[in-house]
Amino acid sequence: MSLDRLIEKIVKTQNPSVVGLDPSLDLIPEFIKQKAYDKYGENPKGMAKAVYKFNKGLIDELYGIVPAVKPQLAFYEALGVEGVKAFVKTTEYAKSKGMFIIADAKRGDIGSTAEAYATAFLGGSAFQADALTVNAYLGTDGVKPFINTCKTNDKGIFVLVKTSNPSSGELQDRRTACGMPASPEAESKAVYEIMGDMVAKWGEDLPGKYMYNGVGAVVGATYPEQIKQLRAKLPNTFFLVPGYGAQGGTAQDLAAAFDKNGLGGIVNSSRGIIAAYKKENCDEHDYAKAAYREAIRMRDDIMKYVGEIRI
Amino acid sequence: MSLDRLIEKIVKTQNPSVVGLDPSLDLIPEFIKQKAYDKYGENPKGMAKAVYKFNKGLIDELYGIVPAVKPQLAFYEALGVEGVKAFVKTTEYAKSKGMFIIADAKRGDIGSTAEAYATAFLGGSAFQADALTVNAYLGTDGVKPFINTCKTNDKGIFVLVKTSNPSSGELQDRRTACGMPASPEAESKAVYEIMGDMVAKWGEDLPGKYMYNGVGAVVGATYPEQIKQLRAKLPNTFFLVPGYGAQGGTAQDLAAAFDKNGLGGIVNSSRGIIAAYKKENCDEHDYAKAAYREAIRMRDDIMKYVGEIRI
Repeated sequence: MSLDRLIEKIVKTQNPSVVGLDPSLDLIPEFIKQKAYDKYGENPKGMAKAVYKFNKGLIDELYGIVPAVKPQLAFYEALGVEGVKAFVKTTEYAKSKGMFIIADAKRGDIGSTAEAYATAFLGGSAFQADALTVNAYLGTDGVKPFINTCKTNDKGIFVLVKTSNPSSGELQDRRTACGMPASPEAESKAVYEIMGDMVAKWGEDLPGKYMYNGVGAVVGATYPEQIKQLRAKLPNTFFLVPGYGAQGGTAQDLAAAFDKNGLGGIVNSSRGIIAAYKKENCDEHDYAKAAYREAIRMRDDIMKYVGEIRI
Repeated sequence: MSLDRLIEKIVKTQNPSVVGLDPSLDLIPEFIKQKAYDKYGENPKGMAKAVYKFNKGLIDELYGIVPAVKPQLAFYEALGVEGVKAFVKTTEYAKSKGMFIIADAKRGDIGSTAEAYATAFLGGSAFQADALTVNAYLGTDGVKPFINTCKTNDKGIFVLVKTSNPSSGELQDRRTACGMPASPEAESKAVYEIMGDMVAKWGEDLPGKYMYNGVGAVVGATYPEQIKQLRAKLPNTFFLVPGYGAQGGTAQDLAAAFDKNGLGGIVNSSRGIIAAYKKENCDEHDYAKAAYREAIRMRDDIMKYVGEIRI
């Protein structure tokens, strides 16, 4: 299934990281915006053109060293139809460069609606993605239609388990009761553990060539104890790890996501990489090269804890 | 806040129901599809044109008697950029007819990403919606940015609490432990009750003119006991109630969503109304009138349990 291709790309690049393409306008260099606005106007069309130009420059620098990109749908939808066009062009371009595409859309619905989302993102015609992030608050009904599409189209999903944000514990850390009718198992578990167990079960329907199946889990770098615990409990679940860098997660924090072969996780950085030129304070024309330098730095930082990655 | 306008429209129409515009292609009459395909081809553009034409016909018949529409984003995204255009045109048309628009997108993310989704759906320029459905698995961080946008733009949200699908209980019915560190309150609550409590708390930031604030809850008609319980516990939370009709929920099942003034809820029906012509087995050219007849039948069915609605 689809995460096999991600794993193979990670091994090839020896880089278990993914660049989040979250192009909010304030991160895009002025020279790109100005050129687009001069040609198309300072309107959604001009903004969307700037977004695509920005992304294309990043992809051109990064595709040789980074296995995957993770465009965040919200930043494209914020520009309406023109933004969605920029999303389509971005994914088509990243695909043409051989990158694995994780559409970060956190979709989740039931029955024919979930089928329609699966068609949209994983069906291969509307939008180009190799994997999709999914919110499974609705339970199995909200996940099975995605899995069915993954099966026929060689795609994967990442289900939110323990998210990286400060308030993720409000619901996800709640401990469920032992011996109550709705949770007959003896052990008391947190909500995120229940979700992790479901993810592992769903994954059995999408076996992979290597250790990991096609139903991954989103587990935040900001919660190292939970990463460790979930890695031990979910040996066949691949982790998408947000929260590195800007949100405070360190390479050491997330090291436990990886197995002895250096597999098992891919770490996301969004603005840390795409807006590296701001932090470097270099010429903004140099934004893509700054992203390259930061991607290398991030790779080396993580690889200190991972060692050689092999299948 | 925005749900005030919904409440006023419900009172005006004396109809607490919303029509789900979930235009999967198999529900669209052949004559509409054929005309669009002849002109634009049997491709995403032709399909999206058929979707809009179908929706427009429904809105023309329904706007006088139904207060709101709830387009489900998945069915538009399944047609890619062209589908998103059809979503935009549908919402603009429904708005021009004075209907309240609930974008059923179940979005949910954190920080600047949630802000971008809020801008997209509730910001007033990208997409036209008066309210948005939100999945709050990520906790307060994933909801506050939506509430901030609602405040400035007079909009509302509906957060998933107890969904209508068969497997909703897998996570939502799990009982949390009493006296455990993460849930110090004495009472053991189900996950959906925890979510309900959070919804009530978030709603305090968006007070309304009437009893109900701007943070509503999605509560399925298929779980009458939970509707009753949540109505008692959340007196200021407006309910969006899916699951009527096709999914098995009856008017009697959902009667407890309403208060003594007939307020407190709005009931959704999607294919039950938009594909009523199939059930009636009438001429497909008559699809919009069949939808009208079914909308009246549904209204009368629910109003038997609601009585006069007043503010």
